[in-house]
Amino acid sequence: MEQDVLAEIGTIVGTENYSTSMADLYTYGFDASIHHVTPEVVVQPRTPQQVADLVALANRLRIPVVPRGAGTGLCGGAVPLEKGMVIDLSRMNKIKEIRVEDLYCVCEPGVVYDDLQKALGKYKFSFPPAPGSAEAATIGGMVATNASGMRAIKYGGTRDYVLGLKVVLPTGELIEVGTRTLKNASGYQLERLFVGSEGTLGIIVEVTLRIVPKPKKTAMIVAGFDTLEKAGKCVSALIAKPLLPSAVEIMDSTCIRAVNQVVNAGLPDVEALCMIEVDGHPQIVAEELEEVVKVCESIGAVGLQQSDDPAQMAKWTASRKSVMASLSRLYSNLCSVSLADDMAVPISKIPEAVVAFGQIAKKYNVIVGTYGHAADGNLHTKMLLDPESEESWKNGEKAVEEIFDVSVKLGGTVTGEHGVGISKAPYFQKERATMLEAMAAIKRALDPNNIMNPGKLQAWEGSIITHLRYPCDGYCDRG
Amino acid sequence: MEQDVLAEIGTIVGTENYSTSMADLYTYGFDASIHHVTPEVVVQPRTPQQVADLVALANRLRIPVVPRGAGTGLCGGAVPLEKGMVIDLSRMNKIKEIRVEDLYCVCEPGVVYDDLQKALGKYKFSFPPAPGSAEAATIGGMVATNASGMRAIKYGGTRDYVLGLKVVLPTGELIEVGTRTLKNASGYQLERLFVGSEGTLGIIVEVTLRIVPKPKKTAMIVAGFDTLEKAGKCVSALIAKPLLPSAVEIMDSTCIRAVNQVVNAGLPDVEALCMIEVDGHPQIVAEELEEVVKVCESIGAVGLQQSDDPAQMAKWTASRKSVMASLSRLYSNLCSVSLADDMAVPISKIPEAVVAFGQIAKKYNVIVGTYGHAADGNLHTKMLLDPESEESWKNGEKAVEEIFDVSVKLGGTVTGEHGVGISKAPYFQKERATMLEAMAAIKRALDPNNIMNPGKLQAWEGSIITHLRYPCDGYCDRG
Repeated sequence: MEQDVLAEIGTIVGTENYSTSMADLYTYGFDASIHHVTPEVVVQPRTPQQVADLVALANRLRIPVVPRGAGTGLCGGAVPLEKGMVIDLSRMNKIKEIRVEDLYCVCEPGVVYDDLQKALGKYKFSFPPAPGSAEAATIGGMVATNASGMRAIKYGGTRDYVLGLKVVLPTGELIEVGTRTLKNASGYQLERLFVGSEGTLGIIVEVTLRIVPKPKKTAMIVAGFDTLEKAGKCVSALIAKPLLPSAVEIMDSTCIRAVNQVVNAGLPDVEALCMIEVDGHPQIVAEELEEVVKVCESIGAVGLQQSDDPAQMAKWTASRKSVMASLSRLYSNLCSVSLADDMAVPISKIPEAVVAFGQIAKKYNVIVGTYGHAADGNLHTKMLLDPESEESWKNGEKAVEEIFDVSVKLGGTVTGEHGVGISKAPYFQKERATMLEAMAAIKRALDPNNIMNPGKLQAWEGSIITHLRYPCDGYCDRG
Repeated sequence: MEQDVLAEIGTIVGTENYSTSMADLYTYGFDASIHHVTPEVVVQPRTPQQVADLVALANRLRIPVVPRGAGTGLCGGAVPLEKGMVIDLSRMNKIKEIRVEDLYCVCEPGVVYDDLQKALGKYKFSFPPAPGSAEAATIGGMVATNASGMRAIKYGGTRDYVLGLKVVLPTGELIEVGTRTLKNASGYQLERLFVGSEGTLGIIVEVTLRIVPKPKKTAMIVAGFDTLEKAGKCVSALIAKPLLPSAVEIMDSTCIRAVNQVVNAGLPDVEALCMIEVDGHPQIVAEELEEVVKVCESIGAVGLQQSDDPAQMAKWTASRKSVMASLSRLYSNLCSVSLADDMAVPISKIPEAVVAFGQIAKKYNVIVGTYGHAADGNLHTKMLLDPESEESWKNGEKAVEEIFDVSVKLGGTVTGEHGVGISKAPYFQKERATMLEAMAAIKRALDPNNIMNPGKLQAWEGSIITHLRYPCDGYCDRG
């Protein structure tokens, strides 16, 4: 990047708040996906006005801009496909207001989810979406990807909590959308449009979130099954009852083996399990636990365990959270790859989906670990691939495509909570055929010079083809 | 409208499904607001494809198009400012799917809210937003205005339930947005952008809604207070507890007198009251009732009444619902006017807001009935004006402006659930100064020929000034 541009950046944020060191640039070329592109400069603004000034500069000089929270995304959303400027918002991390009497809080985009939860917890309140990367993920990143997690079945995703935003538009204007009231019918719900826009429409510099009182009690049940299909049927049967547990996590035998072996999780050695969480008033929790047990038993559950001990529940939750990392360490020659990792289907289709995923894995001779937030239909499958084998890689790619096809055919979507990023672009395109042009029109309208996270929308539309080089070296290639 | 255009319309929908009779056109010039403009043709399509063909025709010939549900809107949203074609969607009224096991339902836009509730009730499920006009309002209209109602405090508004839509864009393309899954991170959340867009971005031809199990039990408390401020304090105190009642309705003495006198509601003769509804598990309902009573008493409530008898609760709810109509019949020379009728403020600001509204009414010597869904900060004020007195009218206009100013100053919005329409355009403009250009850019991008509900966005931006002619004759004038 040219010296005079860097000088302008230095004037805006201070010379200590941007970097062009190779180590920094290389690091900021990654998120938690398999993609990588090195940006030209990384900037850490501290105020909305600094962000606005940076974007105005970038718009004037047509510099690509990619906003970034903690970089925990699994699809390459924060990877700067066209290089340019990465704006790291993690230093804008103040919780500005917690107003429990008005049921909202206001925070900067770099506030970490767990930090906000801790602060809200003091008032016995919560922002319920619980992303897997809660200890690192930022609120701004969650809004930008419409992140959710385990508890969406009962509490919804990020989109359901965003009351208002301050956003820097691609032209550098700082605007306010939404309100601090619980409802508004006051013009376009732009606060919901920016949710899930993955940094392509502007930069979120302040978030007003609805908050809710914490449940008084929580309890969990772990139920084993002798097939993954039965675990899937258990999920559907619970919802059809109707019961609305706060979470139902599903894990197949590969995932169970991985966490038992790698993090000594001590989960029952079964073909599949459901980890069911219920919360609320103690009386409800007691009654729902009874009903959950009955449903599990009617599906043929084995080795039912039940607990309301916080330590035991935390252990179970931690074992579930360590699936992704554990899968990578299960075989010395295979690594876990986030490709077809975030499909969502209608809840009743889960048994069919998991059976189909198993058949596809078998067909292509790849190991697939299936787990996920089954209660809301969101399934994660991780491929275990040999990064040094072209055959393993190609088979993986074919399996991914079929898994996405099945998910969409069952009435589902290719991404429930991770976003499209780079990884899901071609599959997203198939799913969203009729909607793409409207998205592109809105993108052009708000970002006429295409400076915000450029390349992403073009990948989604198919005018840029993204794929992975073999052998997979972590870099993103464009053909 | 020219004969050849009418012939094309006839070819699309059948000659029996459009009308140019003066009686029909005059009727369709109204919604439930004080505005009126006569359209040139009214069409009643039966299928999404017919809607797409009508819009494509209109786009080709630059004919203004205004979609319309039941016309229960209070701000003129469905009044065809630029004349042209009104598309009445009330004949597209089939509930297409109810999938309780997947927690969603699919319906055509003309389905009436109460009909959907009845159908869902058979499965013990519900679509919770409860608009005041539930017996007439259509689902499409609710989506287009982001309608809500009494229960938003606990259950949210329409925007929180829209999973997917089929929409005819202003160019005549039929697109699908959103999903049938409980969550998605699959591209822009256009399903949420169309919510509240008041027919300016396209026509909603199918709606997929999240549904939830009905609460097992409901109970209500009516608490009287000797000032409206105390009733407001009661609302704030309940939420700050924290308690999340399913509804808290507030009514001032004018509203109480109106319903007691006009519909013989039998409410206590007090200065103000709160009607508090709690729902859920019977145990919770019992406990929350106790807590509600304690909070009410701590604020000095008088004449507390409590009931879980469906007949009594229905009577109370009906009395609340009849406020608007009753106000118009309270004085023979005054009629109730929907102008400053839908502000929302942060909950803790309610006492301050209602005191300020009272002072403004006094200052301008107008009678204002204040009521509303106070638990979510949404207050309705109706002016009682003498339509034959210019002074009364002018005073009302001034009072309206100050009421909106106070609401925005308190951190609120000019419309919580009714939408902007025509009535709120100038006040909306003040509230949304920084957001208007982004809205206009999106409008231009999706509707390049400005055929969808034209004039509205221009009124919101201020490039068309809408005001009322005096003496008020129900017609909308443009200066």
